[in-house]
Amino acid sequence: MKTQNTDLHWIAVDWGTTNLRVWMMDGENAVIAEESSSKGMGGLESHEFEPALLELIEPYLSEAQVTPVICAGMVGAREAWQEAPYVATPCTPPKGAQAIAVPSNDTRISVSILPGVKQLSPPDVMRGEETQIAGVLLEYPNFDGIICLPGTHTKWVHISAGEIVSFQTFMTGEMFALLSGQSVLRHSVSSDEWDQASFLTAVSDSMSRPQSVAAHLFGLRAGGLVGDQSAHVARSKLSGMLIGMELAAARPYWLGQNVAILGAGPVAELYRSGLVEQGVPAVVQDVAGLTLAGLTAAFIAQKEG
Amino acid sequence: MKTQNTDLHWIAVDWGTTNLRVWMMDGENAVIAEESSSKGMGGLESHEFEPALLELIEPYLSEAQVTPVICAGMVGAREAWQEAPYVATPCTPPKGAQAIAVPSNDTRISVSILPGVKQLSPPDVMRGEETQIAGVLLEYPNFDGIICLPGTHTKWVHISAGEIVSFQTFMTGEMFALLSGQSVLRHSVSSDEWDQASFLTAVSDSMSRPQSVAAHLFGLRAGGLVGDQSAHVARSKLSGMLIGMELAAARPYWLGQNVAILGAGPVAELYRSGLVEQGVPAVVQDVAGLTLAGLTAAFIAQKEG
Repeated sequence: MKTQNTDLHWIAVDWGTTNLRVWMMDGENAVIAEESSSKGMGGLESHEFEPALLELIEPYLSEAQVTPVICAGMVGAREAWQEAPYVATPCTPPKGAQAIAVPSNDTRISVSILPGVKQLSPPDVMRGEETQIAGVLLEYPNFDGIICLPGTHTKWVHISAGEIVSFQTFMTGEMFALLSGQSVLRHSVSSDEWDQASFLTAVSDSMSRPQSVAAHLFGLRAGGLVGDQSAHVARSKLSGMLIGMELAAARPYWLGQNVAILGAGPVAELYRSGLVEQGVPAVVQDVAGLTLAGLTAAFIAQKEG
Repeated sequence: MKTQNTDLHWIAVDWGTTNLRVWMMDGENAVIAEESSSKGMGGLESHEFEPALLELIEPYLSEAQVTPVICAGMVGAREAWQEAPYVATPCTPPKGAQAIAVPSNDTRISVSILPGVKQLSPPDVMRGEETQIAGVLLEYPNFDGIICLPGTHTKWVHISAGEIVSFQTFMTGEMFALLSGQSVLRHSVSSDEWDQASFLTAVSDSMSRPQSVAAHLFGLRAGGLVGDQSAHVARSKLSGMLIGMELAAARPYWLGQNVAILGAGPVAELYRSGLVEQGVPAVVQDVAGLTLAGLTAAFIAQKEG
């Protein structure tokens, strides 16, 4: 932590539902320092955003200058700090010039929030993922194909000519959390082990007969009561059933396409292995650094715009 | 409430996860009194069952006789009062002679618990529904066809020649509760109004393309954010999507079959209207009284056996 830094040029902010992450930047893209807290937008009233931000950045601010602060993510939702209305597809990932200025009480900062992206038909929205996509396009400006962003709400995004053409959101991660943590299945899927063969069989069954998900869910519990199905097999099957149903529905996105999975850790690998079974050579790209790269792209465009 | 009743012959008990209901019976099937409490098995340790029962029946007991108490439902689960092991399909609904005797501290009662029913392949279980089915078969001994019991865990049961031939459980009700009450959709489906046309369209879409459920769930939220979809339409669609997926998976049960829906209230009517749209003239039979009828059938068989 520093008490003053005359090299600070701007501050990048990734503000999601559950976390707040900030980078103090020197010049365009050199990171001076990084801070984070658990003050995500989900737990804040609108007047609590500026204090939550200042907690992390105040030691770096200087009275001698006004520091630009560029934010992305759920912080721009209607019920958050200040609404940054969605840009509609097809569109490039929102640039700095499209950011909404947010009045702050502290005169040492000049805050702006990047818009999310909406699709009118079928209706869909994203806030935050568009900045990761901007990061990808900064590194691979000619990328043409599908970006899959696994998470609580997994998104499949069609990118062409630098634009977000269309996208679709799936609640697979949230469904898995609800079913494995809060439903009658919670005692039947409580293991940390993993059975990849059971996962892949479930993906395949579910892709060929998606309605079987409804038929087989309760069997994850009954299979332990009347048979000898173990909890880690049940958990692998549950994951496979839900991801399989998503892959069946997302087929128009990935079939015959160039697919990049943005993510880290086991969930990205699950999507990759499911797609590989379908003959789709998807690659996993580590998501670390992408949001900062996207915020940097927005900052540069704002300066230039 | 009575302090003593010399006409008391036996006590019928319906003990589910969330409720306890008892009937004091004179002769075979005349109800002297009915009591209930919210002490379902879900909130009780094994030593708390007898006191919870006595709270309701003590005023009716006599020192002069030992009163038979016959219980059905989750009270016979492994983690409840005492396990009453499942009977395997195909089987008639469990009769009194198959009930498990439970030792009680109070010498004025002689408690027994009816078994549930299990199916080995595909694995499935029921506890409580088999007693409602016994009630139906008491009234319609020649019923041949499908009994659908809507609820948190809806069951489809194939009945032939007085036997439970096979059955399948769907978590549709629990999924609806989790998604509408605890997911990101909770603010988008928070109305008490109902749009039957949206419900039926969603049933139909979901039956013809079950994977579309995965694709359309998040749209229930996005449709309100970027369009003008109202919360009651979203709720009707969510219900239709989930019931449609169930109907698609349960097709082998209802197609070309005689279907009776055991239930009361709006959920039974939703299943009926969904089936009618598929050309299946399902009838709704009120579930009130069926459990007591089934317990009575078990008591008579116990006496005779």
